Formats: sequence, C-alpha cells, structure tokens
Amino acid sequence: MTDLARFSINQMTVKQLSLPELADSCGQLGVSQVGLWREPVREYGLEATAKLVRDAGLTVTSLCRGGFFTAIDPEERARALDDNRRAVDEAATLGTDTLVLVSGGLPPGSRDLRAARERIADALTELVPYAEDHGVRLAIEPLHPMYASDRCVVSTLTQALDLAERFPAHQVGVTVDTYHIWWDDQAPAQIARAGAGGRIHAFQLADWITPLPEGVLNGRGQIGDGAIDMREWRGYVEAAGYTGPIEVELFNEELWARDGREVLAETAARFVAHVLKKS
Amino acid sequence: MTDLARFSINQMTVKQLSLPELADSCGQLGVSQVGLWREPVREYGLEATAKLVRDAGLTVTSLCRGGFFTAIDPEERARALDDNRRAVDEAATLGTDTLVLVSGGLPPGSRDLRAARERIADALTELVPYAEDHGVRLAIEPLHPMYASDRCVVSTLTQALDLAERFPAHQVGVTVDTYHIWWDDQAPAQIARAGAGGRIHAFQLADWITPLPEGVLNGRGQIGDGAIDMREWRGYVEAAGYTGPIEVELFNEELWARDGREVLAETAARFVAHVLKKS
Repeated sequence: MTDLARFSINQMTVKQLSLPELADSCGQLGVSQVGLWREPVREYGLEATAKLVRDAGLTVTSLCRGGFFTAIDPEERARALDDNRRAVDEAATLGTDTLVLVSGGLPPGSRDLRAARERIADALTELVPYAEDHGVRLAIEPLHPMYASDRCVVSTLTQALDLAERFPAHQVGVTVDTYHIWWDDQAPAQIARAGAGGRIHAFQLADWITPLPEGVLNGRGQIGDGAIDMREWRGYVEAAGYTGPIEVELFNEELWARDGREVLAETAARFVAHVLKKS
Repeated sequence: MTDLARFSINQMTVKQLSLPELADSCGQLGVSQVGLWREPVREYGLEATAKLVRDAGLTVTSLCRGGFFTAIDPEERARALDDNRRAVDEAATLGTDTLVLVSGGLPPGSRDLRAARERIADALTELVPYAEDHGVRLAIEPLHPMYASDRCVVSTLTQALDLAERFPAHQVGVTVDTYHIWWDDQAPAQIARAGAGGRIHAFQLADWITPLPEGVLNGRGQIGDGAIDMREWRGYVEAAGYTGPIEVELFNEELWARDGREVLAETAARFVAHVLKKS
C-alpha cells in the first residue's frame, strides 16, 4: 500500500483543472481516487466523465452534492427532490456509492431552525428508496455553524446522526469533514457513535485558517496551514472503524489562482506529511 | 415599568458616540442602563466615566471585557492575569458587578483546544478570589465557533458552564449572547442549566445576518434584521428565571457609519418591537 492509497482529491480543490487534466495529473502522481462535483461533471458531460475516470483507472469516492431540502414552498420542494433524484442517477453513472448532502439553510423570512431540520427528515424519507434502488447511500454533511442560516441548518455531527439514524445505515450516514467540526468537543464521541453504527460514509479534510474571507466560503486552508490537528481526527475515524478514502476538499481562492497540477502535488505531499506521518 | 426598563445599550453598538453623548442620548430616550467597554472608558478616564454615569443616573450592566487567558508563555500569562485584575478594579469603580470574559484563542502554533480550555480554568482559579474581594462576578462568554482559533476557544454554553461550575455561582457564570449560540440546538437546555444554577450573569442580543464580512467581526445584525427569533431566546432565559437587563451589543460597520443618536433610538425601538412585543 502506497502513501497515497487512501488519499482522494476532491475536484473542487483544483477546480482550475479540466477533468482530463485532473485525470492525467492523478496518473502522474499515483493518485487513484477522486471526489467529483455535479456542475463540472455536467459541463464535461456525465457519460464522458464516467468513461474518462473509468479509462484512467480512477475510483470516484463521492459525488458532491445533493440536498437543499429546506424549502417550505411545495413546488420548490418538489424541484429539490427531483434534482436530488438526478444527483442519485449521476452518482450511479459515475460509479460512486456515496452522495454528499448539504441540507440547505433557512427559507427566506423563516427563523425556525427546528422546523427546517424536520423538513430535511421528510425529504430524506422520500429520497431514500430511490437512492437505494440505484445503489447510492446518502451522506449528510454537517456544515460549520457559520453556515446555519444560508446554507445548512445541520451544524453538528450530533444533529446529522439524529437525522441519519431514522434510516438504516446502508441508506443514510454522515460526512465527517474536519473543517466543519474541529471546534466541537462533542465531535470525537459522535464519530465513535457514527462508526459504531456504520455511518461514516465520507471523511473529508480541510484546515482552518483565519482571517475568514468575506462570505466565508472560500477560505479553507491547505492541510497543515491551520489550526486543525489532522492526525488527531484521522485517529478518531480510524478508532471508530473507518478504513475508507480520505478526501481533501479545499475551497480557497489563493489555491485556485495557482497552477492546478502544482496544487495537486502539494496537496498530496501535505497529506503524507500531516495526515499519515507521525510528527 | 416602561418598555425600556430592562433594555441596556452596549456602548459598542453606538461607538461613534462619546461617553457624554451616550449619556445624554440615553437620557433623551429614557434608557437607564448601559454596558461599557474598557478601551473607550480608559480614553475618557475611568473616574470621569464613573462620575458621568452616576450623575446621569445610568446603571452599568456589565463591563467588556476581561479574559484572553490561553497563553502558554508564563510572562504573557502573568500579564493577562494582571490585566484582568485591572479589569476587575475598573468594573468595581464603574459600579457594575459583572465582568464579561472572552477567553482567548489558540496560542501561535498550537492546535490543542482542550489544553487551551484547561488553561482558562487555571487562570480563573487565580482571578476569582480577587474578583470576589472587589464584588465582581465573572461572566464567561462562549463565542460563535467561527472564532474558536483566534479569539475564543469556548464555543458553546455547555463548555462555558463546564468551566463556570468549577466555581460558586456568585463568582463565575456565563454570558448568554444570541449571536453566538442561536444555531445550537443544545443551547436552550444549557440556558435552563445556567438559570437553575443562578449562573446567567449577562444576557446580550445581536441578530445573525449574511453575508458575513471579511474577518467576521463586524457583521452583527440590528435586532429584527436577521435569522434569530429574539422573543424565543428571551423566553428561554426568562423560563430559566432570569429577570435582569437585556443588553443589545452590535458590531456593525454600517451602523457605526450612521448618526449614533439615530442608531440608539432605532435600537431601542427594535428592542420594543422584536424582543418585548408579541408578533
């Protein structure tokens, strides 16, 4: 097993690379796993992407993302569910069994987080049978509480698991992403809970750096640049029985402004230095 | 009891006003309570401020802020404790019994949140007897998790109470600030825990608006402009037995750019409309 055997590069980390460039770059570096995003896949073509990654011998570890389930308006809700069924189809076509879900924020004018979380459960109830029929499991991702109003009302692993556990583990689990949960002293115990239930469906890494940029979306740090002890979190998921891929998913304007192949090589090196090796 | 009987204006909300302007403006509007900050008080003069608020018949509901207890370096730690003793002196001189504590972030190069939280407990152990001798109680404020690395490693009411409960309630309690805890589904139960223990030492309001500005410090929303149901949170603290002042503390560049008297009048009106009245 090479150092990069468990490493997966999330496409968003090097979004300046086209899909063929990404596949080629992975081949050069010995990276065998990628996490994909729906928008660039659609742009390149779904079938074309599926063929590209197959021909390159790449495993697709996850597809980002479904979700956005919190609408109150019935038509909007129906559209969201429909879009999620398409996301399931796309995951199946790409050959990944994992669809990452970002749940959605508060609808305009609403201040009721609790009701929004309940609507997510309702939407999952409708989506789960379709996903199972297509061999796709759903991975609810808690997002950092700074996104609670406009992006994701599920802010902690505890909340994500409370939702996931209403369904069988092979249907619904969670995405553990260090960027979103590193501050939470209850997260290690929740990782243990998730692992015991077989619900760690994805494990993603990004580092926490400050100052946060305006809008707080694209300031995720390169591994090793920030406040998060990556080996510690790898230890938690492994103690919980997780042996799957470790995806690095960075949204960072500075990284996007650089040569994508260089960023991919750097990210792989940081993975080895900060995630695998003892300090 | 007038509508503004429990309202307190935190000085930072209208920092464009000098202390005499603030006192005068409060008098005009029938506002009888203010929360003060150390820096502007020092600039105007501690004794002069104490006389000003006394002469104006204003009650000082809290002083912001002590804390920043997380240094590892012994000299830095000693300086922080010394500064906190000065903060206690200042609170006593200003006639408030409540010093708000912002605990501090990770020291440079550290990734150990747990150890940083433990150093806060150690610092409190040293500070508490001094504060008690001066009739001042300490109010640990959990800050939103987006500040965990650079400002405050205490991110939840649960963590704040775990620290506070190592000391008697009349010595150490918590500051409940809607801006920092509104996303947390465990916060209502923690408010009940705090109230049952007599540990709600301050209650502050700010609304949550997006997009967050760069650095995420000065984007707190005017009451009623954001995602937080203020009456709901007032209900939680009151159900927990809290009958004290309700401070509005906004850090907001747009409010600071406006006429301070107008902002103070608006804030008082928003308090009545969104905190007191039924919708």
